[in-house]
Amino acid sequence: MKKGKIFSGMRPTGQLHIGHLSVIENWIRLQDEYDCVFGIVDWHALTTSFDDVQALQRRIRDIALDWLSAGLDPEKSPIMVQSQVKEHAELHLLFSMMTPLSWLERVPTYKDQIQQFGAQGKDISMYGFLGYPLLQAADILIYKATHVPVGQDQIPHIELSREVARRFNHLYQTEVFPEPQVLLSEVPLLPGIDNRKMSKSYGNDIALSASSEEIKEKVRLMVTDPARVRKTDLGNPDVCVVHTYHKIYNDGEVCDIGDQCRKAGIGCVACKQRLAAKLETILGPIRERRAELLAKPGRVDEILAEGSLQARAKAADTMEQVREAMGVRGVMD
Amino acid sequence: MKKGKIFSGMRPTGQLHIGHLSVIENWIRLQDEYDCVFGIVDWHALTTSFDDVQALQRRIRDIALDWLSAGLDPEKSPIMVQSQVKEHAELHLLFSMMTPLSWLERVPTYKDQIQQFGAQGKDISMYGFLGYPLLQAADILIYKATHVPVGQDQIPHIELSREVARRFNHLYQTEVFPEPQVLLSEVPLLPGIDNRKMSKSYGNDIALSASSEEIKEKVRLMVTDPARVRKTDLGNPDVCVVHTYHKIYNDGEVCDIGDQCRKAGIGCVACKQRLAAKLETILGPIRERRAELLAKPGRVDEILAEGSLQARAKAADTMEQVREAMGVRGVMD
Repeated sequence: MKKGKIFSGMRPTGQLHIGHLSVIENWIRLQDEYDCVFGIVDWHALTTSFDDVQALQRRIRDIALDWLSAGLDPEKSPIMVQSQVKEHAELHLLFSMMTPLSWLERVPTYKDQIQQFGAQGKDISMYGFLGYPLLQAADILIYKATHVPVGQDQIPHIELSREVARRFNHLYQTEVFPEPQVLLSEVPLLPGIDNRKMSKSYGNDIALSASSEEIKEKVRLMVTDPARVRKTDLGNPDVCVVHTYHKIYNDGEVCDIGDQCRKAGIGCVACKQRLAAKLETILGPIRERRAELLAKPGRVDEILAEGSLQARAKAADTMEQVREAMGVRGVMD
Repeated sequence: MKKGKIFSGMRPTGQLHIGHLSVIENWIRLQDEYDCVFGIVDWHALTTSFDDVQALQRRIRDIALDWLSAGLDPEKSPIMVQSQVKEHAELHLLFSMMTPLSWLERVPTYKDQIQQFGAQGKDISMYGFLGYPLLQAADILIYKATHVPVGQDQIPHIELSREVARRFNHLYQTEVFPEPQVLLSEVPLLPGIDNRKMSKSYGNDIALSASSEEIKEKVRLMVTDPARVRKTDLGNPDVCVVHTYHKIYNDGEVCDIGDQCRKAGIGCVACKQRLAAKLETILGPIRERRAELLAKPGRVDEILAEGSLQARAKAADTMEQVREAMGVRGVMD
């Protein structure tokens, strides 16, 4: 007996890094407890990169490969590609007819992001960008998701989905849509190796697909306590990125390592080696699964096609009910 | 050799009246000169009546019956229902990603209509209503229409379609979309029987499906020169609705009728009888064709299903090219 239904997704914006891992590990846990659908939301990626679509197909395969390598199981839940289930576009359009413009204009991320991109000289004030949270509502509600695992920043988007579900049910006197609940995921914030936000575009990330050498190199470059110049200097682990990582990944040993650092009992080189070894135990198995998948050409596409087909069947069921409720059941249905 | 491609459509908002006839007669002429697709745009109807969907299915069949009775030939061009060709929703969504919000906000009908409906206590400031002209652009461009027959008021909408086509072609370095030209249709403005705008909601219309008795009754109620009380009074045909109709429908006899009126040579009753007889020659054959269609249960649905299928094949071809251009060709294509 499952606890409910879940939809969650990511935009295919590039290869994932170790900072994304906890989200996927959370998904993997949820696969057993809920009926899940996981989506690579490529249409969403177009809202901010409609003018840079060259790599979209590669990015979709990259992210799928990342998810699968990390252990997401396509046997337990469909892994779908948004653009392959046209019903999302239809539901988005139907929702658009009954969703007040003001609901979308007041979503906090809307003006923020327009400004943020504007500062980079990029104009994203497109009609579709305003509709972003409504497309998200369609993604979620088309699978009748009862729960959506998200971070704090996404709560207003889920609130909008709830409002859209409520308005639809009320307008058409139906109970097609449940109001999805936020399943707040506590995701440890992993800094980049330079202590800024981790991002591929900053080059400060450790890719999920990093080789042993890449892991060692990235850890070697990690910013440590700048006041500790020699091994004999006493260190302050609180300002050291390596220590932040130890806290997250080396749970058992972290106090010891911190203490050693404070009394100069361990040098940065050795400390980093221990971290690199730990990260290798995490990323090593992921790298192996990736190699297995890559050894079967076409396997990832197959999984995505199969997942999209399964998702489409679910979406089509919901749309049947939506059209019935809205009176757009047509001559060809 | 056809002159180009045409898409044109109407919202299924109720039974058509004689004022709509010239639009359909124009379409019938265009069927021979262009590759046409005619659409019953039911999603568009939802922009202003998302909260009143009970009668939508009936309205779709009514308008199809009106078109077919008036002589539109489904053998020459597909007659489709918008909601049956989901590709329109997909193209609309893709266009939304690259269409500046400001393009839609500045369409003149947008604020006008919000005010107009607002005055009637109806709030239509929905996200989908703002996107109305963009959905129209998708309707037109998905069939690669080179021409769109519209009235003066629709010119800004076609201009938007041209801009969207241009922007798409430019962004993706392609020539998928032609820029559709306006084919301005000179439609004589037929007043209602009370000399206001003809509208079913005013009850001042003559339905395309009117019976002989209804025609006679509506003509009998037509507003004539209020200063002419007795048959012996001299009439002023310039202020008489009956005369406006004679001018449009009784071309050959109109001078004579006007002259007779001015010198009291013909009374209003006789003048109206002549008009009713003329309208009967126009609406009679339409009524007959309607009876023939109604005698074959399911025939209208069959025509719409077949037309939608044909339209879908054309739309699918275009979408193939659109996805290719935008890089959203997916794992299942």
